[in-house]
Amino acid sequence: MTSLSQLDTPAAIVDVARMHANIQRMRTRMNELGVRFRPHVKTSKCLPVVRAQWTAGAQGVTVSTLKEAEQFFAAGISDILYAVGMTPAKLPKVLALRRQGCQLKIIVDDPAVADAIATFGKTHGEVFEVWIEVDCDGHRSGIHPDDKDRLVDVARRLTGGGMLLGGVMTHAGSSYDLDTPEALEALAGQERAGCVQAAEHIRATGIACPGVSVGSTPTALRARNLVGVTEVRAGVYVFFDLVMHNIGVCRMDEIALSVLTTVIGHQVDKGWAIVDAGWMAMSRDRGTAKQRKDFGYGQVCAVDGTVLPGYLVSGANQEHGIISCENGPGGPDTQIGTRFPVGTQLRIIPNHACATGAQFPEYHALNGDGSTEIWPRFYGW
Amino acid sequence: MTSLSQLDTPAAIVDVARMHANIQRMRTRMNELGVRFRPHVKTSKCLPVVRAQWTAGAQGVTVSTLKEAEQFFAAGISDILYAVGMTPAKLPKVLALRRQGCQLKIIVDDPAVADAIATFGKTHGEVFEVWIEVDCDGHRSGIHPDDKDRLVDVARRLTGGGMLLGGVMTHAGSSYDLDTPEALEALAGQERAGCVQAAEHIRATGIACPGVSVGSTPTALRARNLVGVTEVRAGVYVFFDLVMHNIGVCRMDEIALSVLTTVIGHQVDKGWAIVDAGWMAMSRDRGTAKQRKDFGYGQVCAVDGTVLPGYLVSGANQEHGIISCENGPGGPDTQIGTRFPVGTQLRIIPNHACATGAQFPEYHALNGDGSTEIWPRFYGW
Repeated sequence: MTSLSQLDTPAAIVDVARMHANIQRMRTRMNELGVRFRPHVKTSKCLPVVRAQWTAGAQGVTVSTLKEAEQFFAAGISDILYAVGMTPAKLPKVLALRRQGCQLKIIVDDPAVADAIATFGKTHGEVFEVWIEVDCDGHRSGIHPDDKDRLVDVARRLTGGGMLLGGVMTHAGSSYDLDTPEALEALAGQERAGCVQAAEHIRATGIACPGVSVGSTPTALRARNLVGVTEVRAGVYVFFDLVMHNIGVCRMDEIALSVLTTVIGHQVDKGWAIVDAGWMAMSRDRGTAKQRKDFGYGQVCAVDGTVLPGYLVSGANQEHGIISCENGPGGPDTQIGTRFPVGTQLRIIPNHACATGAQFPEYHALNGDGSTEIWPRFYGW
Repeated sequence: MTSLSQLDTPAAIVDVARMHANIQRMRTRMNELGVRFRPHVKTSKCLPVVRAQWTAGAQGVTVSTLKEAEQFFAAGISDILYAVGMTPAKLPKVLALRRQGCQLKIIVDDPAVADAIATFGKTHGEVFEVWIEVDCDGHRSGIHPDDKDRLVDVARRLTGGGMLLGGVMTHAGSSYDLDTPEALEALAGQERAGCVQAAEHIRATGIACPGVSVGSTPTALRARNLVGVTEVRAGVYVFFDLVMHNIGVCRMDEIALSVLTTVIGHQVDKGWAIVDAGWMAMSRDRGTAKQRKDFGYGQVCAVDGTVLPGYLVSGANQEHGIISCENGPGGPDTQIGTRFPVGTQLRIIPNHACATGAQFPEYHALNGDGSTEIWPRFYGW
C-alpha cells in the first residue's frame, strides 16, 4: 500500500470519492433533465476515470483529438464524437477507425469541408456520420443558429453526398466568463434554444436531423430545462477546479484533482516557501486571473486536503512554485519557515484540471483508506 | 522522406539549421568569455538536441528534474547538475544514480537540508558533491551574497559533515523582465559579482569553493566579462522563442521551434481563422503578455517559416486556436477565409519554447532539404 507520503513529488492526485460524487451529481442531473450524457474525456485522458463515467450511465464519449478516439476505442468504447472541426487531411484516420468498427462521429461547419467529406466517403465507400457545429454564443467555431442558408447548405451537401447527418451540436464555452446562477441559466437557455433552432431549420427542409447535442460543465449544471436536446456533453465536472469554483458550480471540497508537492526552501523575510511544483506541474493556466478571485497558480492545502486559507502559489518557474500568504494586515508570513519546514508535503488545487492533468504521465488515485494506485493517462496527438 | 505536408497536426517542428546556429553562437560567446558551458536540458528533454550541444563542446548538463538526470545518464552523460533545491526525500534517488557512476551534483540553500544531506551521506558511505545556491536578484531561491553567516554556515555543515562543496551557483531569472542591452549587461554583472562574492566569503574561512556557476540565456548572451566564473548555464538559447525576442537576445528568424498547425474553419465576419493548435499544443504560457509586444499565443508564419506580420494566435481553447490580424486601420481581415482556406498549414512561433515543447511527445526535426525526422522527448518526473 503506497500512501501519499511515499510518493515522489510533484504528483497528480485524484480523490476517488470526490470524483465518484461528481460523476453521480452529473448523472442525477441528466436523469432529471431527461437527456443522455456523453462525457468529454479530454479532461482526464485516463481509462479508469472514463470507466467510472461509463459505469454511471454515460452513453458514448466526446473526444478532442483522434488519439483520444484511438485510445478509448482500443479500450472498448465505440460510440465516439470527435468534437473539433474536421479537416480533410484527418479523414484517413477517421476512416481507419470506422473500418475497425468505431462509430466515430465527426463535425463540420464549412460547406467546402462538407463536400470534401462526402467526396472522400464516396471514394472509399464509407458513409460518415457527420454533425453540424452550431455557434450558440460567438466564442469560437460553428454556424450561427440564424444562418439558415448555411445550415441547410451544409446539411444538403452532406446528405446529398451520401453521408449521414447525425444532428447538430454546440458548446457554450462562454459560460467560463460567467459567475452567477442567473447568467448561467440564461446562457444554458440560449445554448439549448440556438441548437434546437438550428435543427429545426434543417428539419424544415425535410432533411432528418435527429441529434441535438449541447454542453459545457457550467451550463449542464445550471440548465432549467433541455427540451428538444437529445444529449449533453461536459468534461471538467469529473474533477472540477478553481475556475469552476469561481464560476459557482462547485464547492472547494468537491474538487477532486490536486498536485502533491514538497517544500524545498524558503525566503523567510519575504514570507515565501518554495515548493517543487512549478508551472511544469501546475501548467501555465491562469484561468482565475480574470475571475472574481485570483488564486495565482493554485490554492494551497495540507497534505490531508484541508484548505489553508490565504495560502496561494503566487509565482511559478518551471520546477519551482512560490507559496505565500495573501497580503493581510500582518504583511508577509515570516513564520512560514516553521509553519512549512523543508520536506513538508502540501497539496495544491489547480486553476484548470484539464491543463494540470495534461502535465503528468499518470494520476495517483487516492482511496478512502489513504492508499494510492497509479492510473496512467496519455497525451499528444 | 516525410515532409511537413505529410505530418499530422499539431506537431512541434525544430528547424535543425537554426538550432545548430544557436548552439554555435553560444559556443563562440562562451569561448570569448573563457568559461565552460553546461547547457540546461530542461528546454528540450531530447537526446538529439543535447547531443548537438555536446558535439559543440558542452561540459556537463544542467537538469531540472531527477528524471532528466536518469534519462541523460542512461544515454551516457555523467556530469550532471540538478539545479533545483534538494529535499531529503529525493536523496535515495540521487544516491542510486551516483552509485551507478553518475557524477550528479545537488544544490542547497538551507542549513537543515545541508545537515540532512551530510547525515544521509555518512549513513550510506557516500560523499555527495553539493553546490550552494546563491540568490543574485531576489527572484526565487538561494542565499543572498551578503549573507556571509548563512553561506559559511551551510558550507561548514557540508564539509564538516564529510561532503564535498563543489562551489556556488546562481540563476539571474529576473533577466526575463528586462529588454535593453544595458539592463541585461548590468544584471549579468550583478549575477557574476554576487556569485563570485559568495564564493569569496566561503573561501575566506579556508573552505575550498572551486566552482562559480552562473547563467540565464539573456545574461549569458549579454555579459561583458565573467571574471571569477568557472561555468555558465543556459537552456532556452538552443531554440529561442518570442519571450527571448522581446528581451532582445534573438531575431525572429533565429527561433528554431514552431508548431505546425492546420486551418479547420473560420468566422469570416470576425476575421478569424480557426486552427488545430490550441493551448494544449502552444501551452498556456503567455509570457509576452507583460512584455513590449504581446504576441497572444504565438506569431503566425507560412508553412515555409515566413513570418506573416500582424497575424497572431489571439485566442486559444484546448484544441482550437483563433488566428486574427492585429487591429489595423482596416479592422478585421474579412478575406481570411480565402487567405487561409480550410486545410492550409501554418506554423506558429511560441512564446516560450520550454513550455510549448513540453506539450509534445516528440519533435519533428526539419532538415534543410525539407525532410523531417522524429526526435523523441520525455516528460514527467
